[in-house]
Amino acid sequence: MSLYEKHQSFINQALEAIHNRTFYAAYPEHPKAYGEDGFTQGKILFEAMCDKKFERLSSKDIINWHGEEVSPYTQDSLNIQYPIYDFDVTINNAKQALRQWKKVSPQERAGILVETLERIKTHFFEIAYATMHTTGQSFMMSFQASGPHSLDRALEPVALGLHELTRFPNEVVWEKPMGKFSVKLEKNFAAVPKGISLVIGCSTFPVWNTLPGVFASLITGNPVIIKPHPKAVLPIAICVADIQDVLRENGIDETLVQLACDSSELPITKKYCEHSDVKLIDYTGNSTFGNYIEQLQVQGKTVFTEKAGVNSVILDSVKNIDEVAGNLAFALSLYSGQMCTAPQNIFIPESGVKADDKTYSYEEVVEKLKAQLSGISNNPKMGVGVLGAIQNENTLKRVEKIADLKAQMALTSSPLKSEEFPKTRTVSPTLLEVQADAHHIYSSELFGPIAICIKTKNTDESLQLARSLAAQHGAITCAAYSTDIGTLNKIGETMQEVFVPVTFNLTGPIWVNQHAAFSDFHVTGGNAAGNASFTNPEFVQKRFVWVGHRKMV
Amino acid sequence: MSLYEKHQSFINQALEAIHNRTFYAAYPEHPKAYGEDGFTQGKILFEAMCDKKFERLSSKDIINWHGEEVSPYTQDSLNIQYPIYDFDVTINNAKQALRQWKKVSPQERAGILVETLERIKTHFFEIAYATMHTTGQSFMMSFQASGPHSLDRALEPVALGLHELTRFPNEVVWEKPMGKFSVKLEKNFAAVPKGISLVIGCSTFPVWNTLPGVFASLITGNPVIIKPHPKAVLPIAICVADIQDVLRENGIDETLVQLACDSSELPITKKYCEHSDVKLIDYTGNSTFGNYIEQLQVQGKTVFTEKAGVNSVILDSVKNIDEVAGNLAFALSLYSGQMCTAPQNIFIPESGVKADDKTYSYEEVVEKLKAQLSGISNNPKMGVGVLGAIQNENTLKRVEKIADLKAQMALTSSPLKSEEFPKTRTVSPTLLEVQADAHHIYSSELFGPIAICIKTKNTDESLQLARSLAAQHGAITCAAYSTDIGTLNKIGETMQEVFVPVTFNLTGPIWVNQHAAFSDFHVTGGNAAGNASFTNPEFVQKRFVWVGHRKMV
Repeated sequence: MSLYEKHQSFINQALEAIHNRTFYAAYPEHPKAYGEDGFTQGKILFEAMCDKKFERLSSKDIINWHGEEVSPYTQDSLNIQYPIYDFDVTINNAKQALRQWKKVSPQERAGILVETLERIKTHFFEIAYATMHTTGQSFMMSFQASGPHSLDRALEPVALGLHELTRFPNEVVWEKPMGKFSVKLEKNFAAVPKGISLVIGCSTFPVWNTLPGVFASLITGNPVIIKPHPKAVLPIAICVADIQDVLRENGIDETLVQLACDSSELPITKKYCEHSDVKLIDYTGNSTFGNYIEQLQVQGKTVFTEKAGVNSVILDSVKNIDEVAGNLAFALSLYSGQMCTAPQNIFIPESGVKADDKTYSYEEVVEKLKAQLSGISNNPKMGVGVLGAIQNENTLKRVEKIADLKAQMALTSSPLKSEEFPKTRTVSPTLLEVQADAHHIYSSELFGPIAICIKTKNTDESLQLARSLAAQHGAITCAAYSTDIGTLNKIGETMQEVFVPVTFNLTGPIWVNQHAAFSDFHVTGGNAAGNASFTNPEFVQKRFVWVGHRKMV
Repeated sequence: MSLYEKHQSFINQALEAIHNRTFYAAYPEHPKAYGEDGFTQGKILFEAMCDKKFERLSSKDIINWHGEEVSPYTQDSLNIQYPIYDFDVTINNAKQALRQWKKVSPQERAGILVETLERIKTHFFEIAYATMHTTGQSFMMSFQASGPHSLDRALEPVALGLHELTRFPNEVVWEKPMGKFSVKLEKNFAAVPKGISLVIGCSTFPVWNTLPGVFASLITGNPVIIKPHPKAVLPIAICVADIQDVLRENGIDETLVQLACDSSELPITKKYCEHSDVKLIDYTGNSTFGNYIEQLQVQGKTVFTEKAGVNSVILDSVKNIDEVAGNLAFALSLYSGQMCTAPQNIFIPESGVKADDKTYSYEEVVEKLKAQLSGISNNPKMGVGVLGAIQNENTLKRVEKIADLKAQMALTSSPLKSEEFPKTRTVSPTLLEVQADAHHIYSSELFGPIAICIKTKNTDESLQLARSLAAQHGAITCAAYSTDIGTLNKIGETMQEVFVPVTFNLTGPIWVNQHAAFSDFHVTGGNAAGNASFTNPEFVQKRFVWVGHRKMV
């Protein structure tokens, strides 16, 4: 049985889910689904990888070893060295691998790629610990985001790609009637891969933001070079090693997927981006570098970006103010605002927020939020577990310098303690309060545990500000609360104009930060927050070109 | 019955044809299918339009009238004036029309759009004469290219667009099991139009190269501003008037589609391109301006270009040399090389071309081509009928100055006479002969009736030159002749690498210049000849953004 036959129904189910957009999880998100002793075993395996060379990757032409990862929880170096390859060798490897891979049928590719996912699945727990100690995510988020959620998001382009690649017939006979005779041509249509695909990883979601581009490029026939963030290599290194293993076992050149590490001191990203054979670039990260990536389109490169955005919350009216404040506080706290989907700006009308019981004044709403935020960070059972650790020293510096903005401080960050991780880089969230005209404070992304309450004249002003922020600076999510159907519709239509998905009236154990694979498109691609979307049809189609040859019969 | 119901099966048939890619013509190409007295009536109607204002277009806010069309056949001014609108008014009209149109369902849009095609169909003959006397195409090409072939190419994005727009459900309930309870969200997915679409017409195919972008933008909800070439307005003006009529009759703001004429002296194209509300740009024309259009991507605009390319012919071996030379000579002569699909560079091995009867030396092959080319231009029944007239004075100048290139002249252009059009701007084709190292002569597009025989060491060199030309300068077509299956495959694979479709061994009444709607993709979008393709899924998908709102149940 071929790998395609083995995984065919799994792939079909995924495609059906994509087209239905109802709930579906190809890889269940709970760790328990993957074995009882995973927690313990995973930790042992993770620790066994520290303090040595990571030798599971392709050993061809290694010229050096390097590693600089530090756990945000312990401040200790992981002391893992990764192979550094000669730049030209990686390009040549990719070109060589392309020659073989493009001749593999889309079905076979899909079979092999799903097999790589199944292999990665067997390392979910190590990947979780690796994610935790590079990104600062909590264990549970690390497990889900780098494990099942990543694989779901990788399966999406495989299933959708296979569908698109087989959408037109390989071969047809075209016969044009010309009166008494006809002209006959044999035509064949090939989905030709564009060329080398570069996928640039980020430090906060090194697997989740990397695999979709990798698998979209692979299913469409392109070789991939992954350039991980030098501070978050291990989680994706394990995935790449798994992928290479499966490729090798199936007679495919393992360098079809390469991990091209660099160091913070000697970055190589731009050199890859500007190489003439690199045709596809996937990027997640800050907007400055993202704008550099986007201008490479002028050189004919196809780019997929997810940059920074400023996400808004619009509070108009609610059923239960405590449920709303609780939901928002959790969304703001989760991984300390280091998710691209985290809300930042909370627009509250000066006349307050009407609830079922009474109208809460602006001040009361802010108090509710403060109480809920403090409730999370001060609760030893939640605290560090929800906030995680701050990945990057610079993010912490931004928090420490927040007073320079001279905004009113509703909550000031203070370091949090954890019995398990006494040295964790974790602080309670900062909450600022500003007037609607303080654009200079809330108009850019303040990445990290920083939220801002903005007092507006009314919901119309809130909406106009949220809209114009998204139009100018981009936005990935928007949360809105209203019990008035007209207001809901107006918010929905207005934010649609700037291509921002709105989540209405969310309470309970689900947060605006979460985009579900197979159902929610992640980033719309329509505003300054990025030009790509996980996973819409464009995300796969732009990676290949239809070329139709014709032959006289 | 709604217009959608009226046209539903017609649209479904088109979609099926697109996915099958076998022969299909939604609009039969022969004039006879459209009435017996069309030729006479069409001429009368065309002449009745000359020497006056064209008053069928929206009369809102006209600030001036202008026209500068001259018939390439008679050298007489058509003396038709078209409305000039205030720039800002056209932008505001489009924004206004967008508000209404985006709320029209994809099905209703499709119904209305097919109705506009049906209306245009009733004016095929006038459009043909209008095309003839602006572009210089022969009557038959004018009829087919601006008539049925254009409508087929317009129907493609309507059918494909409807499919893509309805690919995901409008509304779903998403229910995530959470152990003892579940979380329920109502989701809706909207395909949100990107914004104002600018379609920039060209002087040689003012309808054929314009309608695909127009209808792709319309089906996906965007308002369209067409900026025609000031020397070729009438054919598209008739179409726009028809579209506006149908829109108005169906309660849709007629300025959803506007014709924004300018003059050669006061061009307004860049002003439109750079306006912040213009989000989509379709362009056909020279590479210099096309490259300007493509760099607008950096400003977040989505662009669709068809620029210049250098199309190659590779002669390796043939069955019958006369049939091949005849087919190529016709392809080179058709509309005097003013088709973007016309071949230019004919690579011939120095050892000659093997045929079934004997091997023809390089010199003999050139002689065969010369004879066939002269045969067409000197035959009074073909001559001007095949070559048409040269649209642009500059094209003629290029022909006249060809001697400056100092290449060997196998055939020198000379003016052709026509009884019907004594003043026609028609010349017999120029044929040059150069060595393979004369890159400076054959590496750029010599638009017009100019072809070049290039003597190569062998077919491998021919192929490598054709490949590298396509990689560097782009190519839209390639014709290749070989009786050896291995050589055919090698040519096919090699040209695929640079995203060029190859047509093999074409003889008889079908030419490499022809790309059939519903079957052949026109331009692959993969090389420097342009980034877009008629009509692949990207051509519609890039014009809208999926935005999914969620609401707690």
